[in-house]
Parts: sequence; C-alpha cells; structure tokens
Amino acid sequence: MTDVPGAAKGPIIVLVRPQLGQNIGKAARAMLNFGLTEMRLVAPRDGWPNPEAGPAASGADVVLERAQVFDTVQDAIADCATVFASTVRRRDLIMPVLGPEEMADSIGGSAARAAVLFGPERSGLETDEVALANAIVTVPINPEFASLNLAQAVILLAYEWSKRSALAQPPAKELEPPAPHGELQGLMDQLDQALESKGYFHPPSRTRATKNTIRTIFTKTSWSSREVKAVRGIIRALVLPPRKR
Amino acid sequence: MTDVPGAAKGPIIVLVRPQLGQNIGKAARAMLNFGLTEMRLVAPRDGWPNPEAGPAASGADVVLERAQVFDTVQDAIADCATVFASTVRRRDLIMPVLGPEEMADSIGGSAARAAVLFGPERSGLETDEVALANAIVTVPINPEFASLNLAQAVILLAYEWSKRSALAQPPAKELEPPAPHGELQGLMDQLDQALESKGYFHPPSRTRATKNTIRTIFTKTSWSSREVKAVRGIIRALVLPPRKR
Repeated sequence: MTDVPGAAKGPIIVLVRPQLGQNIGKAARAMLNFGLTEMRLVAPRDGWPNPEAGPAASGADVVLERAQVFDTVQDAIADCATVFASTVRRRDLIMPVLGPEEMADSIGGSAARAAVLFGPERSGLETDEVALANAIVTVPINPEFASLNLAQAVILLAYEWSKRSALAQPPAKELEPPAPHGELQGLMDQLDQALESKGYFHPPSRTRATKNTIRTIFTKTSWSSREVKAVRGIIRALVLPPRKR
Repeated sequence: MTDVPGAAKGPIIVLVRPQLGQNIGKAARAMLNFGLTEMRLVAPRDGWPNPEAGPAASGADVVLERAQVFDTVQDAIADCATVFASTVRRRDLIMPVLGPEEMADSIGGSAARAAVLFGPERSGLETDEVALANAIVTVPINPEFASLNLAQAVILLAYEWSKRSALAQPPAKELEPPAPHGELQGLMDQLDQALESKGYFHPPSRTRATKNTIRTIFTKTSWSSREVKAVRGIIRALVLPPRKR
C-alpha cells in the first residue's frame, strides 16, 4: 500500500451486498478523503467491476482498482482482528455498542487489522452478519430524522478514524501571537492623545472612567503586533485633515 | 422552531451562491440528520424554490421549506454573532483557522447565534466573503486527495456540532455577548467611509485588500454591542475638526 497517495494503516471498509455501483464509488471517495484505501466487497448485486462506480468516485480510482471481492462476510474478514458492524442498535443481539469516536479509539493503538461492515443500502446488515462483529458502531443521530446514506456513514467513521491517525495534522494555527502589552500601551497613548486633541474627554470628571472603558475595549482584541501597527496607522489617518488627490 | 423534529439551537448553515438544487437538498438532509434546521441561501444560481432540492432532501423538507433567501452574505449573517467560513486555509487572509471540533467547542456554550458559510460547489467562497467571518473552519483531510463535496462538508461540521450539543451545559454567565454582525458591519462601513474621506485607501489597486485586512482586524475583537457603539463614537470624534473649549 506504500504507493497509495495519503495511505495510512486504517480499517478496511467492507461493503456487504452493495446495490448501486454509484454508491460504491461514493464510498471510495469518502474513504480516500480521510486516507482509507482498502475496500472489500461482499457479493455486490451487479457484479464487479461496475461501470457506474468510477464516475461517482471522483478520482478515488485507486480504491476501486484495488477493491477485493468475496462471496461471504466471513471470507472478507478472515484476516481481521477486530470487526465493527455499522448499524443501529439491535434488540436481537447483546453486544457492545460504540460511537464513532470510541471505535476510532479502539482501532487507534492496535497493529492488528480492523474492518468495518456496512450493509446493503436498503436493508442494512442482517442479524447473522452483525453477530460476526466484535462490536456495533452507530452514529448518534437525530432520532426523528435518521437518514444517513452509505457514503455518509462511511465518511463519518473514516473522519473519526483519521482524527486519531497520523494523517490528521492538528490544524496549524497561523494566528499571529498577540502583541506585547507595551505595544498595546503605545496604541492607547496615541488614541488618548488623538481623542484629547478632539475634545472627546468631556466633562473632565469622567475622563478617567472613559479612558478605562476604552482600555478594556481595546485590550480584549488579541491584536498582533502587525495589527496594532495597522490600527495605529488608521488612527493617524483619521485625525489628519482630508487629503486631496 | 419548537415544532421541528429533533430541533436544537445549532449554527445556521449559509449556502453562498449554491449551483445545483440537488446539492441544496443533500445539504438539508445532512443538516437534519444532526438536528440542524436553519438554512439560508445567498443568491442561489437557479432561484428558489428549486424543484430538484426536494427529492434530494430525502424527507428533510422542513429544512427546505423554512430556508430563507438573501441577496448578499452580509444580509444573511446580519443577526449572527459568530460566523465561520468553511474553506481551506487562505494565504491572502490572516485569520484563525479552526478544525471542526474547535468550531463546535467555540459554538458550544454560547447563547448567541452562529453561522457557517459554504461557498459555491465549484469555486468555493471568495476572499471578500471569507473576510466577513470570525474564523475559517477547515476539515483536516488527505492532502493528496481532498475531494469533499458540499453535503459532506456540511455533514461533518453538523456531526461535530451535535456531539457537543448533546453534552452542552447551559451557558456559563457570559460577559456581554458579542455584537451581531450587522452592527459590526455598520462600524466597518463607517470606518471605510471615514478613511475614504482622508484619502487613506491608496493606491486604488490595493483598496480591496486593505479593506479586507481592516475587516479581519476588527472582526476578531468580540466586541459587544455597547463596545461597538463606543468605538463608533471614537471614530466619529477622530474625524471631526479639533473642538475648542
């Protein structure tokens, strides 16, 4: 898998009896967005390869090209140490029910292969298939409008996995650090002076309170040095007489 | 909103110049899965309502029926205190870049309304539109295959929000809540005009970039309504001719 762009060791996505080629393609796209590259298909309804999968994958062809086809779920997960079944909670089975984050946590540190089973679009996984898994994984969803399609379920689980994996870089904070207080003080002095020259502080008995109010307003801005400079330039411009050009 | 199934106080989803009705419908479905019900549309390409949206919403009609249409992004976010722009990091703007979890955290406890802007399917948000937001939110994605569509971006952010909202405690006593964007916009308009009158924007070719820089400086301040008013008073005073007393 070393030549797969963005590849990382993630769970295998197993689509059980998928119906539409389009949905297989969309699932591949969802996977690769978060660095998952291994797809397995169990008895796809319309055979494999399926010409409708490619266009729906929007470029995630590498996932489709390497997809492996199996006759049964058991064959598909034979080499996997941990298997999750993506489904709603089942009254007919007593097994652990995890959320996406818990699933990602439990895959996280393990070197053994993990797989996630997804059922057919319309009917979902059968009880016997769910029973093959170590745990159910279910996305906590609006109980009055639960309408996740296959690719959406795949993308949410892939996303949670990627957050745990090395692929996920913490978003770089490109924020400039806040300016030192001395610089903010310089800005305040300049503003006080400018306002003074315009007769803003009136009556004199209120001057101190007004200056404190202004200070709290500008102290909470978290402006960087560059931004403090820019604001100083703005104040300078505002107090000038209008320029003619 | 009490009659909306599964409704909870979540961010408003703002689709800016969406192209396909189908994608508007898919976004609505993604939203309602995680309890988001408020959609706003800015200048949808094919007008509104759009007959292709309904079937793609798969039953999330309540979101489409209540969708509000606006001419500009500014109008759409005028009543929002916190605005996020869903986009990749922008080299042309210096502003905070958050991941989905950080966005959800920052929306979490606040009683003030939040909005998330999503750009047109093909081109994404323009720089001027991103500059209206308080922060960029970007999903950390496979750098070698970044192919999130609109509904997928919506569902990932909605999902992260719903995780926090389940845990959400009644907001701790806030200081004054941040002012709605409409008020901040009024401040910006006043400042632009004042600077214009002083010949600050020069050369004209740089005006747009300079205005965006100023906007990002003042959008990050978290000023309350009272503070926005005070700053407007300060600007008014600065542009006046010196008062003699």
